[in-house]
Amino acid sequence: MGKDGSSNAMWGGRFSAGPDAIMEAINASIGYDKRLSDQDIAGSKAHAAMLAAQGIITQADAEAITDGLSRVKAEIDAGEFQFSAALEDIHMNVEARLRELIGAAAGRLHTARSRNDQVATDFRLWVRDQCDAAMQGLEALQRALLDQAEAGADWVMPGFTHLQTAQPVTWGHHMMAYVEMFARDASRFRDARARMNECPLGAAALAGTGFAIDRHATAAALGFDKPMDNSLDAVSDRDFALEFLSSAAICSVHLSRLSEELVIWSSAQFRFVTLSDRFSTGSSIMPQKKNPDAAELIRAKIGRVTGALVALLTVMKGLPLAYSKDMQEDKEQVFDAADTLMLALAAMTGMISDLTANRASLEAAASAGFSTATDLADWLVREAGLPFRDAHHVTGALVAKAEAQGVDLPDLTLDEMQAVHGDITDDVFGVLGVHKSVASRTSYGGTAPAQVRARITDWRERLS
Amino acid sequence: MGKDGSSNAMWGGRFSAGPDAIMEAINASIGYDKRLSDQDIAGSKAHAAMLAAQGIITQADAEAITDGLSRVKAEIDAGEFQFSAALEDIHMNVEARLRELIGAAAGRLHTARSRNDQVATDFRLWVRDQCDAAMQGLEALQRALLDQAEAGADWVMPGFTHLQTAQPVTWGHHMMAYVEMFARDASRFRDARARMNECPLGAAALAGTGFAIDRHATAAALGFDKPMDNSLDAVSDRDFALEFLSSAAICSVHLSRLSEELVIWSSAQFRFVTLSDRFSTGSSIMPQKKNPDAAELIRAKIGRVTGALVALLTVMKGLPLAYSKDMQEDKEQVFDAADTLMLALAAMTGMISDLTANRASLEAAASAGFSTATDLADWLVREAGLPFRDAHHVTGALVAKAEAQGVDLPDLTLDEMQAVHGDITDDVFGVLGVHKSVASRTSYGGTAPAQVRARITDWRERLS
Amino acid sequence: MGKDGSSNAMWGGRFSAGPDAIMEAINASIGYDKRLSDQDIAGSKAHAAMLAAQGIITQADAEAITDGLSRVKAEIDAGEFQFSAALEDIHMNVEARLRELIGAAAGRLHTARSRNDQVATDFRLWVRDQCDAAMQGLEALQRALLDQAEAGADWVMPGFTHLQTAQPVTWGHHMMAYVEMFARDASRFRDARARMNECPLGAAALAGTGFAIDRHATAAALGFDKPMDNSLDAVSDRDFALEFLSSAAICSVHLSRLSEELVIWSSAQFRFVTLSDRFSTGSSIMPQKKNPDAAELIRAKIGRVTGALVALLTVMKGLPLAYSKDMQEDKEQVFDAADTLMLALAAMTGMISDLTANRASLEAAASAGFSTATDLADWLVREAGLPFRDAHHVTGALVAKAEAQGVDLPDLTLDEMQAVHGDITDDVFGVLGVHKSVASRTSYGGTAPAQVRARITDWRERLS
Amino acid sequence: MGKDGSSNAMWGGRFSAGPDAIMEAINASIGYDKRLSDQDIAGSKAHAAMLAAQGIITQADAEAITDGLSRVKAEIDAGEFQFSAALEDIHMNVEARLRELIGAAAGRLHTARSRNDQVATDFRLWVRDQCDAAMQGLEALQRALLDQAEAGADWVMPGFTHLQTAQPVTWGHHMMAYVEMFARDASRFRDARARMNECPLGAAALAGTGFAIDRHATAAALGFDKPMDNSLDAVSDRDFALEFLSSAAICSVHLSRLSEELVIWSSAQFRFVTLSDRFSTGSSIMPQKKNPDAAELIRAKIGRVTGALVALLTVMKGLPLAYSKDMQEDKEQVFDAADTLMLALAAMTGMISDLTANRASLEAAASAGFSTATDLADWLVREAGLPFRDAHHVTGALVAKAEAQGVDLPDLTLDEMQAVHGDITDDVFGVLGVHKSVASRTSYGGTAPAQVRARITDWRERLS
Repeated sequence: MGKDGSSNAMWGGRFSAGPDAIMEAINASIGYDKRLSDQDIAGSKAHAAMLAAQGIITQADAEAITDGLSRVKAEIDAGEFQFSAALEDIHMNVEARLRELIGAAAGRLHTARSRNDQVATDFRLWVRDQCDAAMQGLEALQRALLDQAEAGADWVMPGFTHLQTAQPVTWGHHMMAYVEMFARDASRFRDARARMNECPLGAAALAGTGFAIDRHATAAALGFDKPMDNSLDAVSDRDFALEFLSSAAICSVHLSRLSEELVIWSSAQFRFVTLSDRFSTGSSIMPQKKNPDAAELIRAKIGRVTGALVALLTVMKGLPLAYSKDMQEDKEQVFDAADTLMLALAAMTGMISDLTANRASLEAAASAGFSTATDLADWLVREAGLPFRDAHHVTGALVAKAEAQGVDLPDLTLDEMQAVHGDITDDVFGVLGVHKSVASRTSYGGTAPAQVRARITDWRERLS
Repeated sequence: MGKDGSSNAMWGGRFSAGPDAIMEAINASIGYDKRLSDQDIAGSKAHAAMLAAQGIITQADAEAITDGLSRVKAEIDAGEFQFSAALEDIHMNVEARLRELIGAAAGRLHTARSRNDQVATDFRLWVRDQCDAAMQGLEALQRALLDQAEAGADWVMPGFTHLQTAQPVTWGHHMMAYVEMFARDASRFRDARARMNECPLGAAALAGTGFAIDRHATAAALGFDKPMDNSLDAVSDRDFALEFLSSAAICSVHLSRLSEELVIWSSAQFRFVTLSDRFSTGSSIMPQKKNPDAAELIRAKIGRVTGALVALLTVMKGLPLAYSKDMQEDKEQVFDAADTLMLALAAMTGMISDLTANRASLEAAASAGFSTATDLADWLVREAGLPFRDAHHVTGALVAKAEAQGVDLPDLTLDEMQAVHGDITDDVFGVLGVHKSVASRTSYGGTAPAQVRARITDWRERLS
Repeated sequence: MGKDGSSNAMWGGRFSAGPDAIMEAINASIGYDKRLSDQDIAGSKAHAAMLAAQGIITQADAEAITDGLSRVKAEIDAGEFQFSAALEDIHMNVEARLRELIGAAAGRLHTARSRNDQVATDFRLWVRDQCDAAMQGLEALQRALLDQAEAGADWVMPGFTHLQTAQPVTWGHHMMAYVEMFARDASRFRDARARMNECPLGAAALAGTGFAIDRHATAAALGFDKPMDNSLDAVSDRDFALEFLSSAAICSVHLSRLSEELVIWSSAQFRFVTLSDRFSTGSSIMPQKKNPDAAELIRAKIGRVTGALVALLTVMKGLPLAYSKDMQEDKEQVFDAADTLMLALAAMTGMISDLTANRASLEAAASAGFSTATDLADWLVREAGLPFRDAHHVTGALVAKAEAQGVDLPDLTLDEMQAVHGDITDDVFGVLGVHKSVASRTSYGGTAPAQVRARITDWRERLS
Repeated sequence: MGKDGSSNAMWGGRFSAGPDAIMEAINASIGYDKRLSDQDIAGSKAHAAMLAAQGIITQADAEAITDGLSRVKAEIDAGEFQFSAALEDIHMNVEARLRELIGAAAGRLHTARSRNDQVATDFRLWVRDQCDAAMQGLEALQRALLDQAEAGADWVMPGFTHLQTAQPVTWGHHMMAYVEMFARDASRFRDARARMNECPLGAAALAGTGFAIDRHATAAALGFDKPMDNSLDAVSDRDFALEFLSSAAICSVHLSRLSEELVIWSSAQFRFVTLSDRFSTGSSIMPQKKNPDAAELIRAKIGRVTGALVALLTVMKGLPLAYSKDMQEDKEQVFDAADTLMLALAAMTGMISDLTANRASLEAAASAGFSTATDLADWLVREAGLPFRDAHHVTGALVAKAEAQGVDLPDLTLDEMQAVHGDITDDVFGVLGVHKSVASRTSYGGTAPAQVRARITDWRERLS
């Protein structure tokens, strides 16, 4: 290789660049960690204030640092800051600019601190914000679902198992199932936030420091519950990022399921819902066609978030303490997964808010396929005292009879029913028909409109 | 294909069997879900008692059912139960045997219940137990680490970054870093357990039921906080299993890191620790060789648990509500991951309890590589008032001088030091040397033995 | 801990057992690697024959070993072999039994061999067989698809994008798309097989051996193309297993897609296909219900195989050469993925062979939604000379007119058409209507029945 | 929501933007698919030339299109092209600009083509290039390894199992193990390239076309072996991308293993290698410290590539034919994985080229730990005729004796040896000592320098 680091065939592949260019390309993180600039500056301000309060730096230096950092932030916010790959990362970029702005005092900011605890603090602050954003996004989605649920609390639709009609349920009940799922997602982010809310700052390179710092003060200034208890752990672990990613992945599962339903429900064969123009794409020549692009894209995002989770789990596998450079790979995965999740939540909220459920199609589908056969069987158990398995046998015979006549169960006459089992009475018609069926499912959490409305009321209160 | 379903080349591959055999092979779950037998029987007992209390079945039937279920459990416990693949799953196997034992009353057990809510209940109960087992296993491991930490609270060893010596730390501090990690793991299982502790029983097939059941009673009888609020959600979601798997995966990351350290520390080049004979394998011809097999196997288990998490995330992607048969794939992944985690925790606890840290090797390694250079730089900032960056420059010059002479920093004379910077005084020797270095790191959570001992005391109290 | 290794609370969690039991549980592989017995015995026979041919052991010893191994195999085949966890793995189990059967000569079998090259050889032989099984299973599935394609080469159905009707295609064409996918899957297994077909035997522990062995002879005896070129590589890499798993995962993607289609097509809303009773499950009370359980289970298997791939990629990450115990985790993942794949292929082959495509439903769906609008636009370009974008505009207007009248495009009169664009002639009716549409798509690989039949003929020849 | 699509709290989370902004954010791909511009333009040129040759468009139109596309490409290359998110993707961006440049003729380019086959073609061309780049990068890395292997073909070092010294090997042999691994990686990319080298162009939306196109001509013009055989398959499958990703993941495993070795070998405890300043980072105060950042980052990349593979496998799971919008998620994963792989290969090539193996440290480590005990045992089998298991017993006794005396095996006297077993002769010293040990491993593929040099020669020829 040329001593001058010049382009050399040895480097092969795409990189005709010399080793310095390759090293910079693989080493520098500023291309993405500049997203941590707010957190970095907030952390530095808290650190400087504490150093001054403890008498480690002068009050004048602390003020110069704080003012300088505010100017740096203003430059970044205005898009005027010149990021430099040669300065590797956000911490060095900010510090170098601070030195240009305020001179030697900038050098005192790094007292009793290392990039190891600095980046751990910045990144925790960023992920903590994302937990808040996820909770907010989930609440907005829940509200959209509640609106849909309320509008159609008693609209009947098929309840599917195996994508086969099983029993009628209500549209409101179906929407509320997702309210529950997204509530658990939000509670996962809440738990993750609480667990990660301890401050690494002051762990320094890995061992703590001999300076008389006050870690409780910086922790409090940054909104953390307390400083982390072990300096090695503070700079070496990234489980808070993994927990965010796994919570995002589980939430993405729920989003993918609702998306799949929207795609299927939008098909010409189902026509259960009509998506708004805003959240679908059309065809210039087939005006009736509405492609559920947003639903498909959200469905796909589970892949992206799972991929990010797998990536970071794999990165962290087997790393000895404390800091290894491998851990620089943590941020892009979390950035991408968080962006993906927030966008998917917003798009799903939009789609749900805008969509029109086709009540007539839902009801027509609910009635097909002898979907109240279970109600008939249950009636036989409850009212006619048949053992459950016998009741099923009688029901099967009645369904077969109805099928042979090309009618539904409520269309059979009482005589026809009694010909199959003598104990059937006129009361049976009280449970047949999809509206009667859903109205009867009054067990706690069941699909009866009264139950659904009670749950909606609960949730309205919880979210208010 | 032969109408008789006989063996036919068309089926190809390994399956020379006819379609019935293939369908049974892919469809039956009894091969693994028999592990849910205790949960299934407990759930059925609670259901029967509630049905009787509500007057849905007679007290006599409930007693017959309960007694019969106890007999079934006794047969299973004794290994005398004949599981049948033709009966597909644990629910049908238990019910069929119950019918043989008690006759028609068995048929009333399934009133107001479906296999959908039954399996969801059984599986939750099983996973809930695993959360408890994980917490217990983690606490045992923490205790073993605390013992190690206490024994070597002031033993110095290298603190590594990039597997390069950075600053001295103590053995106790390093052990305590893992105590913190495993504490967060335990708190994740605690949160997961609390979140999943709601009862699906009574959701029936998917819509709830018209029988006047008391879901709060069955929930309470099975130790759940409350019944789940939405019947569709109750039978269709498996996020509790995903949360268990992701908590297990994050815990496995921590286990893999400690394992990697044990493997590296056991090498002839490090010799930081000696594993016990119990947790290593030897060589018949190289008596000094101790292969850290258990550590390597635990390190590998992160792959297995991550694989299980990916598997179930992928299975659940895009499934429309409510139950789809895909979800039958949930159990084997969780069974395998739970077994893996519990075994890994037990093996790690054994290894840590049994291992001997080689104090002399640790201390010798800690002293090499000018590991106290940062202490010198910090002293120059703190005592001689140099800006941090200047202090680094002076330190670099002193290290270079020491290296040129083939000595360590504390071996330089005061004259030699003052030749580099005049403000250095005799006091500087108070911070050089690895024991002085670690003793000085008294910031909260730092490596100073006093800090380490305080954390050990905290944890002893928390775990008692 | 009690010196006697007795049960001790310290081990925590589930493992009340002492350390020896834990170590055996985590260390022993015989529970699963007994599946390699055939390969192990074949490898040992080849090795013994070579040792004798090279004069390293006597011919008499070689014969005793070979006879003894045959007896061991007979015992295993008959289910009479006593596997022992204390003997850890299949290699030690076989060797120990051989010693019982033939005495001291058994000890000479291990000359110039180590467990490291032995297990690498056994496992390669096993995975190689699975490549063959996968190719065979894929071919059977292709044949089933060809039969379906042939039967319905000209049956029209909707071609979907976004699960919205886009253009009509033929059933045969749709089936043939999967024939292509599964052909690429088979070719991946073929390439993987060729690449892995080099023999590790003779690499010994890792360095090769000083015995005058003939590695080419053992390679040839076991059907390998050649011995591997580097002994370290031979015992330390598992990329052949990873390649098998990734080929299986890609194949599983294809299977999951076909399964999803079968599930959707079986719904009451689509009714495109009817699954056979053999490959679906019914309901005792809803006779028309056919749950596509097999399709759902196959759809889910992608999760399992992807999980296995992730598991082994993670296990292999960052292992230094040569053998590490982590690699013992390779087998269960591959065993499970291979079993899963073969079962899924067989079940899919059965489902496809047995299913009935509902020609009338397919055709009715194909005609809906102005699915020939593109044909009309193309005709305007081709015959009336309009630029493509103008043609689209005219088509849009005609579709809107048809929609307003509640009719399909071919139902418009020529007058009505000419009112929109004067250059339209009677010829346009030659491309409208779904049968005319598909017949016109004669570009290579297009959906025209003639094209489809040509491709079927090609494949019949290729597979014969 | 405001009808004007204005900002609305309902959208929640981060997206205060109205629905249009959210839809554009989730839907537009131009932010990343602009990387396909070269491929898109090449594909369009081939298509236009074919349309003219077939008489579907005029020669004049074809020339205008070709010239216009060249101008578009020039604008893109010069960085002057204005990409527009409103135009969604690269195809629409290029076409819109073409229309501006050449007018109506641009509209004829899209004849007999759809975005579905267009993007499938573009993406295949891009991935095909990456296969070539990977092969080139791997060859450069192999050359760097060959140089290292040649320089140290007979330098002894420890051969490790479990990171414990097992037997001596040569540096050259160890380097050559990676040459083999990377050769298989290259052959995987070669196979993937061959399999994907079929052209989707002409599949149109999904059904083929009625225009008399010549798909063989466009395939040939773009360097494909042939057109794809089924139009549905052509637009709906992405297995070529999955195969690229899985090949990249397996290659990343190999890179991670070499990286791990470099990290461990660079530690103060090993000192097997010294990395160049170019590929490590230093410390301003600890001059001897060289952090192996590049190796750590490459080690981490396996996470990223595995994540991308998992992401796309998950995205493709269960998608019905033909095109679904989910598939838009294919590109970013492949782009990122390809960039990652090429950068990792270049950085590894640089590190290997620049590193210095510390021959003395390697040899000293090789001699420790009775690493030639196996040689002694083999000698006893070969020369003294002992059964293998007896030879091991004698060797164990000799090692124990040496250990008791604090010496290595070759330091025992013949008398001392004969006291353990009378058949030992002076010849035994011919195999003891690490150089003699490695020289004796002459089996094919063994570590003997002669074998290593033969393999180097083979590879030099193969790569020339």
